[in-house]
Amino acid sequence: MGRPTLNSVAEAAAVSRQTVSNVINSPEVVSPETRERVLAAIERLGYRPNTAARQMRTTRSQIIGLCIPPSGNGVSGVVLDQFLHSLTATAERYDHRIMLFTAADDEAETRAYADLIASVGIDGFVLTNTHHDDLRTRWLLERELPFVTFGRPWGAEDTHPWVDVDGAAGTRLATDHLVRQGHRRIAFVGWPEGSGSGDDRRAGWAAGLAAAGLGEGPQAAVYDGVEGGRSAAARLLDAGGGGSPTAFVCASDSLALGVTAELRERGIRPGADAAVIGFDDTPTAAVLGLSSVAQPIADVAAECVRQLRTILRGQAEPATTLFTPHLVLRTT
Amino acid sequence: MGRPTLNSVAEAAAVSRQTVSNVINSPEVVSPETRERVLAAIERLGYRPNTAARQMRTTRSQIIGLCIPPSGNGVSGVVLDQFLHSLTATAERYDHRIMLFTAADDEAETRAYADLIASVGIDGFVLTNTHHDDLRTRWLLERELPFVTFGRPWGAEDTHPWVDVDGAAGTRLATDHLVRQGHRRIAFVGWPEGSGSGDDRRAGWAAGLAAAGLGEGPQAAVYDGVEGGRSAAARLLDAGGGGSPTAFVCASDSLALGVTAELRERGIRPGADAAVIGFDDTPTAAVLGLSSVAQPIADVAAECVRQLRTILRGQAEPATTLFTPHLVLRTT
Repeated sequence: MGRPTLNSVAEAAAVSRQTVSNVINSPEVVSPETRERVLAAIERLGYRPNTAARQMRTTRSQIIGLCIPPSGNGVSGVVLDQFLHSLTATAERYDHRIMLFTAADDEAETRAYADLIASVGIDGFVLTNTHHDDLRTRWLLERELPFVTFGRPWGAEDTHPWVDVDGAAGTRLATDHLVRQGHRRIAFVGWPEGSGSGDDRRAGWAAGLAAAGLGEGPQAAVYDGVEGGRSAAARLLDAGGGGSPTAFVCASDSLALGVTAELRERGIRPGADAAVIGFDDTPTAAVLGLSSVAQPIADVAAECVRQLRTILRGQAEPATTLFTPHLVLRTT
Repeated sequence: MGRPTLNSVAEAAAVSRQTVSNVINSPEVVSPETRERVLAAIERLGYRPNTAARQMRTTRSQIIGLCIPPSGNGVSGVVLDQFLHSLTATAERYDHRIMLFTAADDEAETRAYADLIASVGIDGFVLTNTHHDDLRTRWLLERELPFVTFGRPWGAEDTHPWVDVDGAAGTRLATDHLVRQGHRRIAFVGWPEGSGSGDDRRAGWAAGLAAAGLGEGPQAAVYDGVEGGRSAAARLLDAGGGGSPTAFVCASDSLALGVTAELRERGIRPGADAAVIGFDDTPTAAVLGLSSVAQPIADVAAECVRQLRTILRGQAEPATTLFTPHLVLRTT
């Protein structure tokens, strides 16, 4: 079998050459059913558009840069894997490539942008971990360079395209579920104030309590990690006051694991005597039977690539997309 | 502060310009102490060698390709993160870049090689997950293309450079430890025969039993995953015969987690009544207090880049490097 061509994909998907070309270059003009069929044929045959021919029509490198954060994000590591795989696979569908780089901090990351543009002629960037006063987005905006962020521009106007997951909606789902189960003392275990996504997750829990007429609930803020979750739970359980919390909404699975460990230590059985819900739906949560808020990470990555591509083709106004997470209920 | 230069790095590290250049281009001629000092200054200042100038002296793209496996490797996801970060950071030290791509199988991966060489002019590849009858290495060898594998050429001669971790040494360490603790019925829970790394890990356990004069031990082979580990443990515990196993050496943390779950279900307390040792030292193992064999993943990735660079510079015979893992003991 020879190298797959536009023709062989068209034949396999039972469509015209033009339709295959449209799916690659202007998917919005093709019906979802046909698009799916053509994409399936592209994948099955391993077809890749002829880059050499394209480069004659454009001066772009077709390369997208992504700064890979240092490892050590604990049990959430697999989230990055899912993101990277979906980002790379989607980029390939559009004949783009993902190039990785590292940077110790925001300033180093902007130096890396400059270097990658000068040396590799990179087309644009996908950024992760947006935060307040983000030096990187400011730097890119000033130079009118194409980029999309996974994460909203916290504390700033919508000055650039972004894709994100509605964390508040996730913790709201978790809180509503606990309220329906009869819990009245529902605590939140999160990160110190000032982190965009952390404050967002806290807000969803607070809104859930308010909607149920439960007033302000007990909360603890700690750095992420199992030990943080453990000490936060200890503090909340020792505080007493109107009675110890019977349920815990957590900003991450690591925190939730710490909470369950502290509960067990005190003879409180997670799942029976108290409820714990994590965030990120990591494999660890699945293994331990921990309920968790799941983010559609593969969709986020694919949408980042699609938005960046729209910008690179100068086709449309940069967009913003907020995905809604869902709750995965398990026995704990 | 302007963009860091060779001069500013030399000044910061209190060495000559030539020494900085040597650290970048021929690190073997610089003493380890000086090399560390210069690399620290490079990192601190965020210095990046001037690629444009270099490209005038060479026709290389300075790009290394890596096929990213589909996500869904469960609790081991973080291992890939560590690998990617170290690979990218080491490549940058040598002014190389990492480009990602995906492939559904070996044949698709070779098609991707051809495409990346033609379209991007990629210099060489790092391969992961080597296996018996590896189509990819054969394809690359036939074309005399530069590559290094993370994983030995299982079932074949040393026909290409590789970096790997001595899995048998890891399970041997685990088995020896269990023997010293007084265990006599030590089972192995691994993957079906035919996987290079799986058979290697099984061999280390068998050698440990033989060295202790314990003869052949009970074993079960299942597909990787928590459910697999659970059913393997059930089978081994039900088999009885010379008495149930009191210790389990496992080919992965996922399998080990399944084994501990099955033990708990039967009222056997892991850590007290039975010992379980996993493989990969994932964050999940750390969280659960599970002992595990730890692979020096960051070192493996860095060595892959160094070997590939040696090949690209035509400096030396391709080498092979086998790292030794270590045992991380926890309470289970």
